[in-house]
Order: sequence, then C-alpha cells, then structure tokens
Amino acid sequence: MHRLLILSKHADAYRSLVEAAALPDLAIVAAEDACDIVLGEPSLVAPALPRLGAVRWVQSTWAGVEPLLDPALRRDYVLTNARGVFGGLMSEYVFAYLLAYERRLLAKYASQRERRWDPTPPGTLRGKTLGVIGVGSIGAALARTAKHFGMRVKGYTRSSEGSPDVDEYFHGGAVEAFARDLDYLVCVVPNTNATRRLVDAALLAALPSRAVVVNPGRGSTIDEAALADALAGGRIAGAVLDVFDREPLPPDHVFWTLPNVLITSHTAALSVPADITPIFVDNYRRFAAGAPLRYVVSFADGY
Amino acid sequence: MHRLLILSKHADAYRSLVEAAALPDLAIVAAEDACDIVLGEPSLVAPALPRLGAVRWVQSTWAGVEPLLDPALRRDYVLTNARGVFGGLMSEYVFAYLLAYERRLLAKYASQRERRWDPTPPGTLRGKTLGVIGVGSIGAALARTAKHFGMRVKGYTRSSEGSPDVDEYFHGGAVEAFARDLDYLVCVVPNTNATRRLVDAALLAALPSRAVVVNPGRGSTIDEAALADALAGGRIAGAVLDVFDREPLPPDHVFWTLPNVLITSHTAALSVPADITPIFVDNYRRFAAGAPLRYVVSFADGY
Repeated sequence: MHRLLILSKHADAYRSLVEAAALPDLAIVAAEDACDIVLGEPSLVAPALPRLGAVRWVQSTWAGVEPLLDPALRRDYVLTNARGVFGGLMSEYVFAYLLAYERRLLAKYASQRERRWDPTPPGTLRGKTLGVIGVGSIGAALARTAKHFGMRVKGYTRSSEGSPDVDEYFHGGAVEAFARDLDYLVCVVPNTNATRRLVDAALLAALPSRAVVVNPGRGSTIDEAALADALAGGRIAGAVLDVFDREPLPPDHVFWTLPNVLITSHTAALSVPADITPIFVDNYRRFAAGAPLRYVVSFADGY
Repeated sequence: MHRLLILSKHADAYRSLVEAAALPDLAIVAAEDACDIVLGEPSLVAPALPRLGAVRWVQSTWAGVEPLLDPALRRDYVLTNARGVFGGLMSEYVFAYLLAYERRLLAKYASQRERRWDPTPPGTLRGKTLGVIGVGSIGAALARTAKHFGMRVKGYTRSSEGSPDVDEYFHGGAVEAFARDLDYLVCVVPNTNATRRLVDAALLAALPSRAVVVNPGRGSTIDEAALADALAGGRIAGAVLDVFDREPLPPDHVFWTLPNVLITSHTAALSVPADITPIFVDNYRRFAAGAPLRYVVSFADGY
C-alpha cells in the first residue's frame, strides 16, 4: 500500500479528484512521516521535506520547482513537475495581451470613458514577428497560436528545435540575430543558470523600438533594471510582465508607473487541480508498476 | 479597353496596387461618364451612380453594400463585394475581447493604477461555448479560432451548415435552444430583412446571465433598446459593440455609460487596399474574359 500526502492550498480539490480516480493500493494520509508519495506545491513541500522520512516521489503541482532546488535540501527522491498543461493557458494569456495591444484596447476604452467615438485603425498580428525564448511545450503552444494568427515565429533555445510552428531557430550567441526584427518577445524558460538575465541590456538594445516584451515565465529571465531603462528611454515600445524578481512587486517599484508596462501579478497560467491530477494519476500508475515516471526534474538542470 | 474609376478614400493606394498588377486592356480614368468599372466604397459609389452612365460592374471594397441597396438606385450592373478577407481580422477583434474578458484585463489594469498586486485568478476560454449568428466565411473563421482555444461552437444560420468547426447548427425558430447555454454570442450577419433585430428581447432573455454579446457585424442585427435593458438589469454580463443603428454613436446614448459595455467605434475589420485589390484583380480577369465574377451580390437578398 502506498501512502500519499497532499500539500496544497487546493488540498480538498486534489483529495476529491484523486479519490475519484480510485487508484489501486493507495491511501491518502495526513502524517508527514508515513508517506512515500507527496503531491503538492514546491513552496509547501520544501519546508516539510526534512520531516518526510519515507518519501520516494514528489509530484509538483507547478511547472517551476525552484523551492526544491535549494542545495541545502535533500535530493534523495524522484521529483516530477507539471508539464503539457500550461500551453493553452499561456496562449490565452500571451495572445490576450498581443491582441489587446494591436487592437488598442486600452486606448479605445479611454476614449469610451470620454464618450468619444474613436475610429483609430487597429493593427493586426498577421505578418508580425514573434520571438519565443524557450520552445518547450509552452513555447510550442505559443508558436502554434501565432501561426493561427498569421505570424512569423522565431525561436531561441539551448539546442532543441522541436516545434514545426517555429520558422527559424537561434541558439547560443545568436541573440542579436534573434532579436533584431521582433515585434513581440515572449520569455517562457525555466529559471536556470543558463536563462538567468538572458534578457539583458544587450538583447534589449538589439530589439526594434516597436517591440513589446512579454514575460509570463520566470522573473529571473529578465534584467529588470535594464528593462526599466529601455522602457523609460523609449527604446522598446512596451512590456507585459507577470513575474518579477520580488513578488508581490514592491509598491515603490518603477514598473508600477512606467508608461507602457502592464502588470498581471503572477496569474498567467495558474495550476488547476483538474489539469494537474491526471498527471499525478498517470505517474502513480507508472510508480506502482515500477515504470519510469514522466516529467522527471533534473536537480542539476533545474527543470 | 476597359476603363476603371476608383472611388475610395484610399484611392491613391488602390491606384498604385492596381497599376502594379499590370492588368491587360485596363485604363484608370477620372471621368465618371467614361468608366465601365468602378472600384470603391459603397458610400461613395451610391451618390455617383446616376452619373456613371456606362458602368457595368462595381467592385465594393467593403463586405457590406447597404448604400447601394436603396430601392431608388439603379441595379442594372453587376455588384460584387469583398469576402474572404475579413475572417482573420474579425478573429483578432473578437478574440481580443473574449480573451480580455476572461483574463480580467481591464480589472488588472485598474489594480495596477493603484499599485496593487492583484492575484485574482483569470478565467479561460477552454470549455466555454461560443454562439455565432451567421456562419459565412467570417463566422467560419471565428469558429476555427474558437476551436483553437478549446471552445464549443454553436452556429445559427438560415440554412447553411458549411463550417466543420461548428459543433451544432440551429436554424429558424430554434433561437432559444441556440442561446440558452452560450458564454459568448457573436453576430456576423449582413443587414437583411431576415437578420434585422434578430437579437431581440426574446433571444436576450434566453441567454444565461453570464453571457457576453459581441457585435462586429451590423448594428441592425440588435434591438438596441432591448440590449440596453438586458445590460442595465444585469440579465446578461456584458456587450462589446462595434456597430450601431446610428454612427458615430450619439454622445448621449446609454451605451456610453452602461457598465460592462465596451465600444470600439466601427473598427473591427477595416478594408485594407492590400487585402481588397487581389479580389478586384481576380474579378477583373474574369470580367475581361467574360467569365462569371466572384462574390456577386444579390440585390434581393442584400448580400
């Protein structure tokens, strides 16, 4: 009999969904020292880890697992994360803002509040160029939606070239060639040594002045001071920011008041129990059968 | 030799594009009485029509041709309109607003202006139901985008069932069955006797209270007083309105101030010369060859 501990702010929903799956040989337990499996948010699992003496497998409900990568924490268990379920939500987030930008949604709304008929022509995504930093399952979903709207897609990755919807791939030092003709730059990479401050002053300087930066990925990807400089100087057109070095974003942060910055308070693609539970259920069946789990995180790579 | 008169506020752009096409046996003329072909906006063609003695074919740059349907005007020429080019733009318009609604874009922006971190969870289009009134090329494009975002699609048409992306069709008196479980209702029908006030008090009463009405089609489709009542009474959740009975919308119109109404000032899908010219070029080749033209408007049906 396996024993599952749920550590989530949606614990009741996960309990119901896991129970409904009627998994064989699985009991849901409340005692930390009795469990061999944990399902939960990395932020809640990390502080409990020293007390989870028998744990062999942790299924993260998030894609990002930073709290569990602290070198001071044990790594003597299999860590799996949530993948493949955020592409749709991320597409809705990113294209909500790309389309709002093209359609001048906020400007039209401002006109409306003045009861002013505003026939200013909108722009269009068709023919524009999207650059995606990180083409995993989320980046591939963004590329697919971009193609649906008739965009050209450039992808920047470490080495992979897996999405058929990316027109051109860039790697390594080719950052300027990647950036120089983008209308939109979207960052969807995990937080690793290789991605930290990837969007720095040099990359921002390579973007055209019409470019809008969108970051629903990890705050660490962007050099925030360099981005604030580029925005304040009008060297890029705007930014849509969901994640930050410090969250909640401090009230005195320059991003709150810079023109052309939109802040979405880390809500781009929230983990929903109905999406995550099937990943756990599938992995549990593998675990119970002694088969390899899906979405195993490499502690060394950080994803 | 055929003689083309261009009557458009984008006349210079059309002239350049038509000249670049190097069509055989075609001269662009300025004299109204010398032309046998007119390319232009119906609003500019209609008043000139009595003087266009030799005209045999008018290519409208718009989809809607209402100004030319006035029974007092001659109908002794072939009228073709623009089709097949607005689907992409209409999709960008409609999904900009559907996504903005799900993502609480305006509420997040209001929080930002107060420097307030706002982690309110967004909604999602996935699993929601879109109802499309009118499934021609525009409605089919909307259905395709809805499927891309994982929506269910219901279509209301006179009789056609042409789009594979519509899950269920409704016709004739089945308005309530069509409306009763919609999250979003989008109207993209031409202005005809059959579509006038199709969205009336009865249809609005059949919608769930969560429903949002989007009208980028024709103002005449909606009973504006009934819509204002439904919105003011909270019987539906919102409306996104591009077109109206009177345009510009008068400054004292109730729509300007109703909560949950967004007004976009007839900009949903503007005719762009680069999109329309290929339609003219293709039709000109047919005209010159004595072949049937594409997109011929029936004066009786109005589209």
